[in-house]
Amino acid sequence: MTKNNFNLPNYEKLEADNPHLDKNKAYPLAGVLVVDFTHVLSGPTCTRMLADAGARVIHIERPTGDDTRHMGPYLEDKSSEYFRIANVGKESIALDLKKKEDRDFAEKMISKADVVVENFRPRVMKRLGLGPDEMVKKYPKLVYASISGFGQYGPMHNQAAYDTIVQALSGIMDATGQPAPKGSPTRVGTSVSDVVAGIMGYAGITTALYAREKTGKGTTVDISMLDTTLSLMVQDLMTALGPHKVPERIGNRHPYMYPFDTFESQDRLLAICCGNDHLWSLLSNALAHPEWVTKAEFKTNDLREANWQDVKNAMEAVLKTDNAENWRQKLEEAGVPVGIVQNVVDTCQMPQIIERGMIKRLPDGRDVLGTPIKFGTWNSYGAQKDSPALNENGNAIRAEFDGKN
Amino acid sequence: MTKNNFNLPNYEKLEADNPHLDKNKAYPLAGVLVVDFTHVLSGPTCTRMLADAGARVIHIERPTGDDTRHMGPYLEDKSSEYFRIANVGKESIALDLKKKEDRDFAEKMISKADVVVENFRPRVMKRLGLGPDEMVKKYPKLVYASISGFGQYGPMHNQAAYDTIVQALSGIMDATGQPAPKGSPTRVGTSVSDVVAGIMGYAGITTALYAREKTGKGTTVDISMLDTTLSLMVQDLMTALGPHKVPERIGNRHPYMYPFDTFESQDRLLAICCGNDHLWSLLSNALAHPEWVTKAEFKTNDLREANWQDVKNAMEAVLKTDNAENWRQKLEEAGVPVGIVQNVVDTCQMPQIIERGMIKRLPDGRDVLGTPIKFGTWNSYGAQKDSPALNENGNAIRAEFDGKN
Repeated sequence: MTKNNFNLPNYEKLEADNPHLDKNKAYPLAGVLVVDFTHVLSGPTCTRMLADAGARVIHIERPTGDDTRHMGPYLEDKSSEYFRIANVGKESIALDLKKKEDRDFAEKMISKADVVVENFRPRVMKRLGLGPDEMVKKYPKLVYASISGFGQYGPMHNQAAYDTIVQALSGIMDATGQPAPKGSPTRVGTSVSDVVAGIMGYAGITTALYAREKTGKGTTVDISMLDTTLSLMVQDLMTALGPHKVPERIGNRHPYMYPFDTFESQDRLLAICCGNDHLWSLLSNALAHPEWVTKAEFKTNDLREANWQDVKNAMEAVLKTDNAENWRQKLEEAGVPVGIVQNVVDTCQMPQIIERGMIKRLPDGRDVLGTPIKFGTWNSYGAQKDSPALNENGNAIRAEFDGKN
Repeated sequence: MTKNNFNLPNYEKLEADNPHLDKNKAYPLAGVLVVDFTHVLSGPTCTRMLADAGARVIHIERPTGDDTRHMGPYLEDKSSEYFRIANVGKESIALDLKKKEDRDFAEKMISKADVVVENFRPRVMKRLGLGPDEMVKKYPKLVYASISGFGQYGPMHNQAAYDTIVQALSGIMDATGQPAPKGSPTRVGTSVSDVVAGIMGYAGITTALYAREKTGKGTTVDISMLDTTLSLMVQDLMTALGPHKVPERIGNRHPYMYPFDTFESQDRLLAICCGNDHLWSLLSNALAHPEWVTKAEFKTNDLREANWQDVKNAMEAVLKTDNAENWRQKLEEAGVPVGIVQNVVDTCQMPQIIERGMIKRLPDGRDVLGTPIKFGTWNSYGAQKDSPALNENGNAIRAEFDGKN
């Protein structure tokens, strides 16, 4: 497992010869103008995906800048890596929307936009006279997406939401972690409710852009972090909506298959997944215990599931005799699905991740996340511009939109 | 917290009077024909979203049916709730793709499709002569999406992946859970890598459909579960790619803000999120400890973060004097962001979730997940058809596609 003070691969050099990452290919959303009123994480994730697909994204920031410009982690030059990761490929203009002049300029931009995205609480844009329903009525070809904690309607719609609160309410915390009394509900170790709401916003926008090409009609798009996080909860929903049972938190193992869990080796944790008797027999042989295949307590998946703690103990007794990397190689050769539980620094150095261009080097020399949507016909490198300085494009944008209304 | 043997709300009755869920509205993807070669979870999630947006989805199943038809949880009639949740709104035809006649019929369907989706290992469709590059070359307007563990190229592309293994490799397990020695890497308690890959597949397909309207060109869309899960890891990526540090697992709290964590009350866990001094003062007053606002160890966010265990202990000493529901009401009135850590059965009963139509009742009387993309112009109820019986539409589909080639 990679420790501090690591060097990352030279992504720039590695991508130069990669035929899958042709920077000169056309972008699927070329020509789409996005006016981006978002801030912090869920909204900026959505508009970063639009920028990665080649839309022109103009990020409107308050005069003091997006909140994340003032959040760590910071680099040597005091710039925020948080802002960078969410705003690659965008332009920036600073506007004070409380001033009539700037508010009117914002509407001028909206009037020429294909897409508007915002993630304020629902009342904020309405109070400015720039709310979703009003704007789509006035500009009927507009696609106007709002991302919020609970959505644009319903009894909770005006409540503030943060990722941790949405995780609590959605059931994902209750589902994550070891069972009581050893464990308790556990937060997913990334802001999954924010990020997936951003992805869902992108999905709604592209759906609406397609429908607009077909019909000429724009639309509002209303994304709730709570709705989106609930839509991830498929296994728990099956249990709740099917047999009407309360799902139980079961740690790292699978609810219906065994061994499908994490296991201790001499050093690191291993994930091993054998969903059927064939894989179980490959595993038993690779661990030099061919007798497990016919052992009364282990021979079917149902038996292994019922006796999972015994299976786990038996496996770990063997796995603890060698290190994870040796076991990984051995099990992979045997055809057993296996992976080492590793940190994200290890992930960023995987040849698979490098070849997929999932980390890329920008002109400013910084490494950022690539795009996970890989098209054959279209550009799959994603945005090629650094994240902007505050108001970097302000003058040019003012000149462009003020000139010709 | 809801216990077993619960009754769910009558969603059908509740949605009848809900103006936001107009079943008669047009669908944004009306007229789009999807030929769906997917199975289990990631692929079916993608095509369920296409069905929810009004595309016609023909799910090709092997003669024994999608694997999930044989996985629990089962209902009284032995039908699988797993299959249901992933296949609402689709048609079903059983084909044995190893037989030339059925393989040729599948290609006939592809030749008339707008979209193909599959989630086999990369070599499977190629071996059938139905691989993504080949089909898009032959049918240049086709959008052909493949969802796999690691993608269509790269050193690992032919390896089998399961959600647990992708979670291990992506860093999301390492990031989730309590720090050592109390805790160890923890699986997210839902198949997040499968589901988010499905959502990303949908996003790629709608992007490609828009680009096709603009240019006439189809494309392959290549989604890797590992890429997609890595793209969720924004905080850990900031730490890794910015200051080049290895991110640390920190349990339920936020890395840079406090209190932004879960807290014990008399009965249940509460999530409380105060990201600034103003919210901290509201919280201190609501807990009847106004002196915390100026207390030397607590008065700024940096101090609270440095002394987080003391802050937590002080807060829990108060919170344990009453139950979570009472605290929720009190803190909400005070303007403090708060939520009870609840299970998915509680979530399904929230008035907010009900009004958003996030659970809906199908004609067969079963409750299923609604769609989290709410359009103003377009249908936001999602698919209205039950999940199909195996080969339910086989004869009709054969007649339709065989007749006119």
